[in-house]
Amino acid sequence: MKSLAELRKILFEIYDLKHAGALLSWDQTTYMPPGGAPARGRQLALLSRLAHERFTAPEVGRLLDAAEREVASLPADSDDAALVRVTRREFEQSVLIPTELVSALSEHSAESYQAWTLARPANDFATMRPILEKTLDLSRRIAECFPDRESIADPLIAFSDYGMKAASVRAVFDELRTRLVPIVRAITSRTPPDASCLAQHATASEQLDFGLGVIRKYGYDFDRGRQDMTHHPFMTKFSLGDVRITTRVREEDMTDALFSTLHECGHALYEQGIRMDFEGTPLANGTSSGVHESQSRLWENIVGRSRGMWEHFYPSLQAAFPSQLSKVPLDTFYRAINRVDRSLIRVDADEVTYNLHVMLRFGLELDLLEGRVEVKDLANVWRERFEADFGLPVPDDRRGVLQDVHWYSGVIGGVFQGYTLGNILSAQFFDAACAAHPGIPSDIVAGKFDVLRGWLSENVYQHGSKFTADEVVRRATGKPLSLDPYLAYLWGKYQPLYGLREEERTAAGVA
Amino acid sequence: MKSLAELRKILFEIYDLKHAGALLSWDQTTYMPPGGAPARGRQLALLSRLAHERFTAPEVGRLLDAAEREVASLPADSDDAALVRVTRREFEQSVLIPTELVSALSEHSAESYQAWTLARPANDFATMRPILEKTLDLSRRIAECFPDRESIADPLIAFSDYGMKAASVRAVFDELRTRLVPIVRAITSRTPPDASCLAQHATASEQLDFGLGVIRKYGYDFDRGRQDMTHHPFMTKFSLGDVRITTRVREEDMTDALFSTLHECGHALYEQGIRMDFEGTPLANGTSSGVHESQSRLWENIVGRSRGMWEHFYPSLQAAFPSQLSKVPLDTFYRAINRVDRSLIRVDADEVTYNLHVMLRFGLELDLLEGRVEVKDLANVWRERFEADFGLPVPDDRRGVLQDVHWYSGVIGGVFQGYTLGNILSAQFFDAACAAHPGIPSDIVAGKFDVLRGWLSENVYQHGSKFTADEVVRRATGKPLSLDPYLAYLWGKYQPLYGLREEERTAAGVA
Repeated sequence: MKSLAELRKILFEIYDLKHAGALLSWDQTTYMPPGGAPARGRQLALLSRLAHERFTAPEVGRLLDAAEREVASLPADSDDAALVRVTRREFEQSVLIPTELVSALSEHSAESYQAWTLARPANDFATMRPILEKTLDLSRRIAECFPDRESIADPLIAFSDYGMKAASVRAVFDELRTRLVPIVRAITSRTPPDASCLAQHATASEQLDFGLGVIRKYGYDFDRGRQDMTHHPFMTKFSLGDVRITTRVREEDMTDALFSTLHECGHALYEQGIRMDFEGTPLANGTSSGVHESQSRLWENIVGRSRGMWEHFYPSLQAAFPSQLSKVPLDTFYRAINRVDRSLIRVDADEVTYNLHVMLRFGLELDLLEGRVEVKDLANVWRERFEADFGLPVPDDRRGVLQDVHWYSGVIGGVFQGYTLGNILSAQFFDAACAAHPGIPSDIVAGKFDVLRGWLSENVYQHGSKFTADEVVRRATGKPLSLDPYLAYLWGKYQPLYGLREEERTAAGVA
Repeated sequence: MKSLAELRKILFEIYDLKHAGALLSWDQTTYMPPGGAPARGRQLALLSRLAHERFTAPEVGRLLDAAEREVASLPADSDDAALVRVTRREFEQSVLIPTELVSALSEHSAESYQAWTLARPANDFATMRPILEKTLDLSRRIAECFPDRESIADPLIAFSDYGMKAASVRAVFDELRTRLVPIVRAITSRTPPDASCLAQHATASEQLDFGLGVIRKYGYDFDRGRQDMTHHPFMTKFSLGDVRITTRVREEDMTDALFSTLHECGHALYEQGIRMDFEGTPLANGTSSGVHESQSRLWENIVGRSRGMWEHFYPSLQAAFPSQLSKVPLDTFYRAINRVDRSLIRVDADEVTYNLHVMLRFGLELDLLEGRVEVKDLANVWRERFEADFGLPVPDDRRGVLQDVHWYSGVIGGVFQGYTLGNILSAQFFDAACAAHPGIPSDIVAGKFDVLRGWLSENVYQHGSKFTADEVVRRATGKPLSLDPYLAYLWGKYQPLYGLREEERTAAGVA
């Protein structure tokens, strides 16, 4: 395994460069003063260029050829065979993209992010328009490096959800929309519960402390992570020993920071759960955006907004915020955190309507990339489609096209489908975990999460990218991705909350 | 100037790599969770290796040769000539050091720092001993790369104080010791003032807020900087647009964090004052450790502990801490912050005895490098020499050999002389500024610092490394480094504070 050992050394360097870049990005969004921005973009571009040059060097191709011969007789699910296979896949992707394009995108993304942090609060889409046009151009140029594609979005989707294409995502989304819209209609025809108990003042530090206490119980390892403040919460990693999350706090919304923390913690549990001996290789990452989001959504929603969870945590939440919550019954709180609303902001959306937000963005990404919508019309098209889907006018771009960080800090294309794939998979994984360990729901009521986290670690986390998303889903749940568990979960939870009727169940196609 | 332009491009990359490394180090000492340490050392080593490889490549030598021809007809003090000259100097230094040694030191330093953060509070020199032996070995191996040297410490001293050698530093220190010790004796023969007003509880956030308010008035640009918490305060830079400082707070000591903030702010004013068009070149750094420390000490001590300063700031300090200070007269506070003590900790030492701490360390560095003291005996030799110099027993290694971060986070050699050179130069620069602008002392009483900072920017800061330390000192003050202004400053300040007598003045050789 001499060639594989040499290849590993090079991979270690490439990941050290990528992780150094990740730290520079983390700092840009957490602590960097504004004067640091111009150099930061340049520094990020340099690091991504060096990593890309190193990875796409002919030497890596030769070592890969030799390593393939070395592992030829190993079973496909051996670690070494998987390492060579996944490295080959990423190598073949990377060599098609010119280094100049990688570093141009990296520098442009840093500049675009910096501009967005000012443009969003100022409701200033005009400033972002030329920047976004350049982003779209760079995104297309990257996609065009890949000759075999049905849609120009396919290569971009494959970067984050290997195995999926525009057409396959669209098929899943079309089915989901057909089955979900009747549930949304049924729920929003009812009187929504009173959620005013959440709209109370609570200091940032007390909110953060409570959230940190919850994720400590979830099993987030603070010796290998920490939480900092940012505009748009995210999880990032500088090694398997340093997996950080970020959040933001609204002092007039008692649970906003909390659920963001639970969400990012889900991502972090995945990364902290990867086998340490995968460090410095492409195996040491979550396998896809969809599987990653399945974990953030599982811990945020399926666990985090469950009644069992709050049977355990609500007394301590009341104790932490007595003036706000001591007179609010658990049931009122539980209904409030699960209130379904047609609302403007994706990250604040409830579990049921959330997918409509994602589908809107996914559709716009395809239309931008495939040339059916131009950036100059994007803000207006957003408004029209949003109003058509949600029946709500978009009062400003801040709460419209400017709301999400993604298009303003990376490529357009392939970045949103993972959220809904994740919602779907979160229920499928949770069902499988409960089938293996029927005590999980009562564990949650007792504030115990180790059996659930253990099953997820065993079946999902530890493997990193050793298996593809499809393989992980099949191995862990026995079937390919399926909408049934997710729709059954939504029905099972919201039917009693909103008093839905049997005939509404049938329209949603819930078994 | 085609070759110079090409050279500039490469230099930009090298500084971007170095600054990325600086951010990784900053994070290691401010926010990084313990699990991040192993990868961080590796990442830092990689970045320093890449920067060193790039800088010492034959291409850089060829471009330098060509650039020298391009600037041959320019005056020596033109920017381009200076850039080529300083780059040549650093190139000739760097090519002598093998890349492996650079990255080994970088990785070792990160590991050593991490170990020191645990060993110091645990008073555990035994753990640090083998680490420090390796540091000494690496330091010697680096010094041995330089054939022309009288002392093995010379190359290490030249890294931070170009133009100085062990012998020239020793000559300055010997003269200083001769003239300073009589002042120390005279002062410590008096009854010290009561400093108990400083030993009161004040919350960390209030202490920090006050300090930030002061450095805002000094002119620290928060759009190009920020302050974070660390074990051992420092200033660092990720570009000329991002010059950060760090501090630490003791809630039982009201001014400890404050003076550390003023000190680091002095360093930062220097770096923030460098001409922006020097960005990405070796000119965009302070010219030497001594000149750098002259600025930290000037703003911390000559300004920051002056009576005029506190005539301005004391009312607002009292207003910020009424329960602690409202009944403490200005004069009592002023005497307290200038109390001279034979004390254990360098960074807490008063201005007068501080230099004895530095000389102790400088002497030990020479003895370690030149083989007269072994690491295994270092803790004991420290105790003996400290007691001889200060007349105080060292109760533990935490307050002895483990107290300073330097030997535990970089080379041994060349790191301490700058502190005392800086003390000496701080008075020389301040005198020259006041000679040019006699209104500076009354400006300080009015809380105005722009004339002083303007003079320093004009004469010192803006030039970065364009001129050597010796050139900067001569250009700004009209003479080479001289002890006279510093001893006159000490006498002028402490004579009235301690009621020193004329015959004591003569013994100290103060004119």
